[in-house]
Amino acid sequence: MFLEQINQTGDIRKISPRDYAALADEIRAFLVTKVGEHGGHLASNLGAVELTMALHLAFDLPKDKIIFDVGHQCYTHKILTGRKDGFDSLRSLGGMSGFPKQAESDTDIFDTGHSSTSISMGMGLAKARDAAGEDYAVVSVIGDGSMTGGMAFEALNNASRMKSNFIIVLNDNNMSISHNIGGMNRAFQNLRTEPGYTRLKESVKQMLDSIPDFGTHMVSGITRVKNSIKQLVMPDMFFEDMDLTYLGPVDGHDIRKMTAAFEDARRMNKAVIVHVVTQKGKGYKFAEEDPERFHGVGPFEPSTGKMLCTPKRCFTDCVSDMLLEMAAEDRRVVAVTAAMAHGTGLTRFEEQFPYRFFDVGIAEQHAVSFAAGLAKGGLKPYVCIYSTFLQRSYDQLVHDVCLQDLPVRLLIDRAGIVGEDGETHQGMLDVGYLRTCPGLTVMAPKDGRELEAMLRFSLDFEHPLAIRYPRGAAPESVSDSAEPVVHGKAEVLRRGKDIVLFAAGNMVKPALDAADILAEKGFSPTVVNARFIKPLDEELLVSLADEHRLITVISESNRSGGLGEAVEDLVFRRRLPVEVLNLEPADSFIPQGKPDELRTKLGLDAADIADAIIAHGVAPGAGKVRRFFERLGGKS
Amino acid sequence: MFLEQINQTGDIRKISPRDYAALADEIRAFLVTKVGEHGGHLASNLGAVELTMALHLAFDLPKDKIIFDVGHQCYTHKILTGRKDGFDSLRSLGGMSGFPKQAESDTDIFDTGHSSTSISMGMGLAKARDAAGEDYAVVSVIGDGSMTGGMAFEALNNASRMKSNFIIVLNDNNMSISHNIGGMNRAFQNLRTEPGYTRLKESVKQMLDSIPDFGTHMVSGITRVKNSIKQLVMPDMFFEDMDLTYLGPVDGHDIRKMTAAFEDARRMNKAVIVHVVTQKGKGYKFAEEDPERFHGVGPFEPSTGKMLCTPKRCFTDCVSDMLLEMAAEDRRVVAVTAAMAHGTGLTRFEEQFPYRFFDVGIAEQHAVSFAAGLAKGGLKPYVCIYSTFLQRSYDQLVHDVCLQDLPVRLLIDRAGIVGEDGETHQGMLDVGYLRTCPGLTVMAPKDGRELEAMLRFSLDFEHPLAIRYPRGAAPESVSDSAEPVVHGKAEVLRRGKDIVLFAAGNMVKPALDAADILAEKGFSPTVVNARFIKPLDEELLVSLADEHRLITVISESNRSGGLGEAVEDLVFRRRLPVEVLNLEPADSFIPQGKPDELRTKLGLDAADIADAIIAHGVAPGAGKVRRFFERLGGKS
Repeated sequence: MFLEQINQTGDIRKISPRDYAALADEIRAFLVTKVGEHGGHLASNLGAVELTMALHLAFDLPKDKIIFDVGHQCYTHKILTGRKDGFDSLRSLGGMSGFPKQAESDTDIFDTGHSSTSISMGMGLAKARDAAGEDYAVVSVIGDGSMTGGMAFEALNNASRMKSNFIIVLNDNNMSISHNIGGMNRAFQNLRTEPGYTRLKESVKQMLDSIPDFGTHMVSGITRVKNSIKQLVMPDMFFEDMDLTYLGPVDGHDIRKMTAAFEDARRMNKAVIVHVVTQKGKGYKFAEEDPERFHGVGPFEPSTGKMLCTPKRCFTDCVSDMLLEMAAEDRRVVAVTAAMAHGTGLTRFEEQFPYRFFDVGIAEQHAVSFAAGLAKGGLKPYVCIYSTFLQRSYDQLVHDVCLQDLPVRLLIDRAGIVGEDGETHQGMLDVGYLRTCPGLTVMAPKDGRELEAMLRFSLDFEHPLAIRYPRGAAPESVSDSAEPVVHGKAEVLRRGKDIVLFAAGNMVKPALDAADILAEKGFSPTVVNARFIKPLDEELLVSLADEHRLITVISESNRSGGLGEAVEDLVFRRRLPVEVLNLEPADSFIPQGKPDELRTKLGLDAADIADAIIAHGVAPGAGKVRRFFERLGGKS
Repeated sequence: MFLEQINQTGDIRKISPRDYAALADEIRAFLVTKVGEHGGHLASNLGAVELTMALHLAFDLPKDKIIFDVGHQCYTHKILTGRKDGFDSLRSLGGMSGFPKQAESDTDIFDTGHSSTSISMGMGLAKARDAAGEDYAVVSVIGDGSMTGGMAFEALNNASRMKSNFIIVLNDNNMSISHNIGGMNRAFQNLRTEPGYTRLKESVKQMLDSIPDFGTHMVSGITRVKNSIKQLVMPDMFFEDMDLTYLGPVDGHDIRKMTAAFEDARRMNKAVIVHVVTQKGKGYKFAEEDPERFHGVGPFEPSTGKMLCTPKRCFTDCVSDMLLEMAAEDRRVVAVTAAMAHGTGLTRFEEQFPYRFFDVGIAEQHAVSFAAGLAKGGLKPYVCIYSTFLQRSYDQLVHDVCLQDLPVRLLIDRAGIVGEDGETHQGMLDVGYLRTCPGLTVMAPKDGRELEAMLRFSLDFEHPLAIRYPRGAAPESVSDSAEPVVHGKAEVLRRGKDIVLFAAGNMVKPALDAADILAEKGFSPTVVNARFIKPLDEELLVSLADEHRLITVISESNRSGGLGEAVEDLVFRRRLPVEVLNLEPADSFIPQGKPDELRTKLGLDAADIADAIIAHGVAPGAGKVRRFFERLGGKS
């Protein structure tokens, strides 16, 4: 067991080169077992085992700095830096993160989770190193998928002016290259110095042109992949045009060749791209066969590859079904995503309506502005995107959608608590940044049935619109009421007299449960499903303020700029005689953990909500007049 | 006078080709006169006269759609679409915009103002056209500067999959290409079919490599320009690598050649780049000689090119001076900008500290994450950027700066009302989106002296920090007080008893003036300079709430998510016995106009503030107890 000898950073150097392959096998077996237990990112980590070993052999950590783009492929790096035991608490509350974390190790340089950032950050670090007269290496490891993100291009464009060493490792995993072409890729390494190279390039280009757009499984429907192939099979052309030095392609499972390439790269006083070809899922047959399914997984049975949880119907499934239904009825319905087709439930849409489906790759900015163009031309675009990644389209949303008042529909998945992926993936900011967009309508459904009704509503709505909904199971219905969705109108689910629970989205259910608790204690709670985060149902809130003493706001979103502030501003603007208790969590980055654990920690479950209201100190049944005297007595 | 014959869209077709040159001359004279009177964008418009004429000749407007990237170069387009008279009210309140505006003409497709969006929007529009079975042309006109923006790359990467016509006109104005190379560029048009072409390319590349980085005026200090040159002198390589069809380069002042190229482009069933080389400032010698100075100008004297306004010392000048001073003291101080070196006052910094100055080009995302890397490496980066363009770095600010808790200093120029550039350039959203960023400190100075103090404060502050300040004149000092800047502490400028005016940044002065008005009417106002928008000075606000009946919040920023909501949330969270009157304008896109006109319109001048407080209905001198009885009497 060579893995037993790996207990701290640098231990890999004690392993004899002839045992590297055995160590790699042990690491893979370890990863399959641990991810099988806890869930996590598997296929990308299996692909990067030898690459990470080679990086640790060629560079001296923590002196040298390795920045993993996105970061989900850092598991082997964690093993090699003394964090093997951390895998027993992988991705759990208080346990080891599935992403790089500076707090865990001085070999983790940035806490990353979003795509395409590593070249910019690495370049800045390299410039700072030069300014300080230090001589450590800076290595940004970035996948081929991340290279389509515009900021990676911005960084490459700037990296070409580096006059000192900066290494960009392009981890080109076979995910986006069909197998036969991946093989050809390796052939280039020997061929690129040959005189026939240019001619060969041309013939590869022609061959690629002859691949149909909706051809084999591996290039299924994603025409962009074909373009990526062209860039990646013939990468030196592309990178050389950008005045970057290119080394490769190198077999990403051959440690000796990679360390040699890294050592070559390190000697150059400029930015160097080392192109490494790896196979996603390598060494675990179920992941090799279906790398997409094993990209991010829950717990599974290693011997069979079978997922252990039977998934419940979730909000994403509602979107999936409804978009198909609406697309069948209305040919103007089109779907746009940015490399999140599977996660946002568009797989069947792509199959059934290939010409109305646009996966633009990791390119969130383009996705939103492209949708603006589609809407301007009379189509009904649905942009399916995760809350945290929509952050990258903020300006496009303001400038290209809202300013133009175009009916782009944003279907914001993974809004609120996301869970085990931690800080970088929580969708806690969207309410805040969406509320700043003039003219944007923002909705949140309480259950699956309401999400369907909101999607129906969106079909003929002629202005910018966003629907945010959480990851995970969607109760079919949390209430019997079924009022039609009307723009800007909330829904009263329970009528009481003293306290309003004004809840949005998935917080409506705990609000209803909290109302039951409060009723038992003598309160008479009213429960309102906000439905519209923007615009607020002002008329309803004004009338409720006249009848109640307290409006409690409950939303799974950060407090700064959130729903609570919107209600509070309304109360002061209309001078409503009511207090507001805002239960949105104080703004912070929320760590990893099971969603329900995190909700409890943030005070967002029914018991917490009831307790907070009781602790706020309003006596049950007290009339309005009494509140004023209380305040008066207490404060003046 | 041929210009007299141009009164509506299509009139240019009535002009004989032999008179095009004369018409172009007349348009240029007209532009110089009108921009001289009103200010506006000059150099880029002078460069695009023939290009725009050729577009109008080759395409049939409004059926065909032309999208101008950024949009500031649309003046000739406005002349050719019946809006000549609009130049008498150019950029003024209620007058004609200096940017495309759908409300002005059906030949304006989007209201644009930000960079690098046109390819995404155009591609979406072209896809919608195809879906509808229509056959109009879609033409995105984009400058070479905008091409460095990552979203343009994202769009190009996707445009290569177009199977129908989509035309991208690359308006490569000589601004970013030195003169001799511009000439060589034209030579390529004849040469590119020659066998020696490839060899020539190589020799150009070598020649470019021999240009020093800090050489002639035209390539002054901006190494990136050199890289752009490589891409632009040898553009077919770059674009062909991306599988885009390339036509050109075409002389952008030769109408016949351009119309021929556009007609060729139109026949192709794919995305086509037409590379057009123009000269910025062409035909007006002062603009030709100093195109950067004539990019965006105030009123000037056409015969001498002399600016008519003597500029007052503005906030940007304070930044300019202080950064030099701090950089001289502390070698860790570095400056980063994204093609806003002149506008953000970094010209002298670049001259004095060339190796500590980074202009990354139009690449706001990269700028912020690059600065994160600089900070991680121990430097003290100052990112100088306009408020409206920082919107494009929102995700980078959250993920690469705040999550890492890195001391990146954002110096946010043009915050609040910007004025004549209108909706797309106002900086009204930053308070809202910055407040959503966990761990970010946000400051606003009331005057030049305080901005200097805040910059001093920022030097050793070890967390993410933003200072927002407006365009235009900075009063040296609006108050005698000079309390040191302490994190999270506001400054009391006037002590009273009944009403608090809690103002941020440039709103402190009108708040002081409003206090004078209120005092004359019997009120006893307290005036507080917020200094910190985030975190709020909670302790001070709590104590003021005990002593006053009303806190009025005054900030030049949109209301949703703004400073007012922050105060309101505090009042409810701490259950303070005080009312809040939030005078931040309701969220909307603010149109063009003189800044002071717009402030008056938004109720942000001293008289409006005083009136709003009086209208709020609190009697001067009334004690706290009375307020509660009033509310009670009125509402219960």
